[in-house]
Amino acid sequence: MKIATFRTNGAVGVGEILEDRGVVVPFDLSAEDAARGVLSLIDRGALPDRKEPISLADVTLLAPVPRPLRNIFCVGKNYMEHAHEFSKSGFDSSAAAGAVPKNPIIFSKVPETVVAHQDDVIIDSSASEAVDYEAELAVIIGKGGRAISPENAFDYVWGYTIVNDVTARDLQGKYSQWLIGKSQDTFCPMGPWAVTRDSLDIANTAIRCHVNKELRQESNTGLLIFDIPTIIATISAGVTLMPGDVIATGTPAGVGIGFEPPRYLKAGDEVSIEIEGIGTLSNTFRNINR
Amino acid sequence: MKIATFRTNGAVGVGEILEDRGVVVPFDLSAEDAARGVLSLIDRGALPDRKEPISLADVTLLAPVPRPLRNIFCVGKNYMEHAHEFSKSGFDSSAAAGAVPKNPIIFSKVPETVVAHQDDVIIDSSASEAVDYEAELAVIIGKGGRAISPENAFDYVWGYTIVNDVTARDLQGKYSQWLIGKSQDTFCPMGPWAVTRDSLDIANTAIRCHVNKELRQESNTGLLIFDIPTIIATISAGVTLMPGDVIATGTPAGVGIGFEPPRYLKAGDEVSIEIEGIGTLSNTFRNINR
Repeated sequence: MKIATFRTNGAVGVGEILEDRGVVVPFDLSAEDAARGVLSLIDRGALPDRKEPISLADVTLLAPVPRPLRNIFCVGKNYMEHAHEFSKSGFDSSAAAGAVPKNPIIFSKVPETVVAHQDDVIIDSSASEAVDYEAELAVIIGKGGRAISPENAFDYVWGYTIVNDVTARDLQGKYSQWLIGKSQDTFCPMGPWAVTRDSLDIANTAIRCHVNKELRQESNTGLLIFDIPTIIATISAGVTLMPGDVIATGTPAGVGIGFEPPRYLKAGDEVSIEIEGIGTLSNTFRNINR
Repeated sequence: MKIATFRTNGAVGVGEILEDRGVVVPFDLSAEDAARGVLSLIDRGALPDRKEPISLADVTLLAPVPRPLRNIFCVGKNYMEHAHEFSKSGFDSSAAAGAVPKNPIIFSKVPETVVAHQDDVIIDSSASEAVDYEAELAVIIGKGGRAISPENAFDYVWGYTIVNDVTARDLQGKYSQWLIGKSQDTFCPMGPWAVTRDSLDIANTAIRCHVNKELRQESNTGLLIFDIPTIIATISAGVTLMPGDVIATGTPAGVGIGFEPPRYLKAGDEVSIEIEGIGTLSNTFRNINR
């Protein structure tokens, strides 16, 4: 099931996407609940009643989780070929730990980085001149817990979405820890919607990223070095996971710094990330000058 | 002015601490506002009306910001002698960047790590066997902004509090990025209360940390390598700061891994952090076994 957060006639709604019919079927939610996006469905037993379908042409998609409740967890260097391309890029402050990490590298992005499908992503050249894309599958946690075993990890997953873990490579290197380089305003496009857990075969799901229609990243979530159960077990070993937590699982090879010379994003570039079974997340980058 | 969040007779309140009279003078706030702690005072122009004083003996202190709105920003290796002791400890995954950082190292702790003065901090030996203390001055942001200049930075500060940036040293090293080692449940004691910006002379404020009454850390906030205006300017260059953000400014020398062999915390240890002009934050560590 595909679930979207959207705006129509000035009001926010959450509903099921029926792509073949070109409609979204809204759930009957209070305005306060709907503003939480798909999180409004996570902490209730049954799905709410449905209202009349709305044509997708009449809605603007919002991020499925418009405002995560705390920083988004992210995993670094979690596909083999990307681990190698990043390690030799000169920007990897974790390179001392080895090109391919022995343990998951976990960092965060602030919640306010989230923007929707089709929203602009801002390149602020006064802050960074090395803005890069990272196509990623993100997990949305449905049930909180601590010390979750890998065997039970999927019980804690509500569903999935796509994120672009946009990164200022210069800041990622300059500040050693990655928070700043990963948390620049608008640096987490998310969408176009979320899908429930049963919708994906995580062991075999294609992920692709195009920049201006040129294929840059092509991989499969089955190739994650640390799989989703391992990531969930690692974080929750001492950090209680909460319903609504978002975990971006890492990006495959083919990012801008994987090229020689690096191919950073510039104004007008469109980055489109496709994950089989979810959909396509597209965003255009633009400059602001201060 | 000292402002505390507290519980009395099952209700949460926010009020001014008058230490010489041994009372807290509560502000007239709705239950919903009071639950936000001192954040309830930040986004209003004037202070609310005051109610009848309550004896401090009749209240339980809560953390001044019981639940920060997003992860707490933290600065690493921000006192010269501590930068050296940490770099040579073997746990410093940022050591390649040099013992003394050229730029602020910024990372985060999840908001749910926050506990109050006198709350227990949990040592879970199944997650970490190397739990360490870090006495720190924390800034509470009062006004949001982006691209804040160092000259104007204090206009964005609401006040200050004390945090213990408790750290699992083994996890800090193991996972390369510091989020996990810093975010273990209960790893951010905060309090005993906050003070407004005018209460401290940041250029000359003593900070001390005792473990079981033994002096371990003693320094002065005037010795920060990157001062508060620099930290605020660095983060806000590309990450919009929000009212209520908490920024822990780094710890001086004398943490457990500064000793040879390291002196990790064990069950029953009491860590007390004193910052002149604020007060003393004390917490006892205890084991849980799973």
